[in-house]
Amino acid sequence: MGIEYDGSAFSGWQRLTRPGEEDRRGEATVQQAVEQALSFVAGRRTDVVCAGRTDAGVHGACQVIHFDGPAARDPRGWTLGTTSRLPASVCALWCVPVGDDFHARFSARARRYRYRILNRNVRPALGRGMLTWERRRLDVAAMHRAAQALVGEHDFSAFRTVHCQAPHARRDLQAISVTRQDDVVEVQVQANAFLHHMVRNIVGSLLLVGRGEQPEDWVGQVLAGRDRTRAGPTAPPDGLVFLGPLYPAECGLPANVTLQSPAP
Amino acid sequence: MGIEYDGSAFSGWQRLTRPGEEDRRGEATVQQAVEQALSFVAGRRTDVVCAGRTDAGVHGACQVIHFDGPAARDPRGWTLGTTSRLPASVCALWCVPVGDDFHARFSARARRYRYRILNRNVRPALGRGMLTWERRRLDVAAMHRAAQALVGEHDFSAFRTVHCQAPHARRDLQAISVTRQDDVVEVQVQANAFLHHMVRNIVGSLLLVGRGEQPEDWVGQVLAGRDRTRAGPTAPPDGLVFLGPLYPAECGLPANVTLQSPAP
Repeated sequence: MGIEYDGSAFSGWQRLTRPGEEDRRGEATVQQAVEQALSFVAGRRTDVVCAGRTDAGVHGACQVIHFDGPAARDPRGWTLGTTSRLPASVCALWCVPVGDDFHARFSARARRYRYRILNRNVRPALGRGMLTWERRRLDVAAMHRAAQALVGEHDFSAFRTVHCQAPHARRDLQAISVTRQDDVVEVQVQANAFLHHMVRNIVGSLLLVGRGEQPEDWVGQVLAGRDRTRAGPTAPPDGLVFLGPLYPAECGLPANVTLQSPAP
Repeated sequence: MGIEYDGSAFSGWQRLTRPGEEDRRGEATVQQAVEQALSFVAGRRTDVVCAGRTDAGVHGACQVIHFDGPAARDPRGWTLGTTSRLPASVCALWCVPVGDDFHARFSARARRYRYRILNRNVRPALGRGMLTWERRRLDVAAMHRAAQALVGEHDFSAFRTVHCQAPHARRDLQAISVTRQDDVVEVQVQANAFLHHMVRNIVGSLLLVGRGEQPEDWVGQVLAGRDRTRAGPTAPPDGLVFLGPLYPAECGLPANVTLQSPAP
């Protein structure tokens, strides 16, 4: 099932085990809301597994979950029934039956994130909560060039939070771009998987380059140093959207969550 | 001064004189918020005149206002000082000194609006309040062709609300387009001026064509009939953004509110 959500009012996809670690933004989690709605439709308690957990305030354009449900309802019934039981900030986009070997997290070959920065003198009024604000003019070309040092399989320890629970920090960053359209600077990044706070720490470091406070080759040096304390600050959650995971074509999922070519 | 606002929480730019006419969305108006902030910065009561009043729930990307203020503050001081006194849903984008002959409403040669429709099975979660939802698949090419019958100088009585207080209904509609990007259908329209509810009534009529409930040439027939009861229903305010007015180049305003060529 594909899930869209506005993360503004949630403490994240899932409650974190470390109290005080995060801006909680209320106590509700997206996962709780989804499980409650699905359980009502299924007529029994239904737990879900997601492709990628998101932090407090981070949005989801197409989170993917799997769950075991009674086969009696058709996919359309699941989608509309679940959406009707969800708060306005969450909806189910689609539902597709999958085999027992499908796993929302382990079957995913890649994840895509988007980060948007409003780059102008004045804070946002329209679209606030979906944008991070940076008043100093950003050198987008320098940010884009600096970011290319991250492409490839690396140890991303420099860009993980100390609270990250992943067993190792090697990730394959497949593509990253920094572009501008009028006042909005957008970072898009795709990797096989991400560490906790990895996108926000990368963006925080690229912002230092964009403001001219660090040279372009500094990002590569930070990566090589594997030391979180040398990277830039964690960028705020507001501008971040989890666009969604990508699965092999044989999973039979919608096009926007399907790899267009075999994974590298 | 350019003003950006999220209209969701306001009863419109200005309070309407007819109680019960509108979805009030709270009692606050954008104009009140702006006048209160400007009065604080100016150190005296400051009234404003806007380029185009917007209804309850309608957003502004670049509303333009004029006011008489003491010259002691520079434009940057006006912009940042005013923004600092505004609620999060409103900001001042820029401020430019103008001559006594400038009038935010009467000097404007054109106004531009954008209307966005999320066209998919499921209601929006991300970006709700900025989108109107239509679940039936829209024929965008038919909507675009039908809309071209509105281009030119016409009597738009068929698309004005009965509460419209304009002395006559002749308007020069300079351009209208209907386009699709993925699930989002966008109507953009520019005219010398608009009647009350004119954009929402045009969109409501184009939706009937897009759903196949009316033929393409019906929109032109409705226009010619000058009878509001023959047009489609008024589309909701949520998807509507007042992009802003356009002034002659000699007014010396920023590029996004300046005519790129002489007015027709």
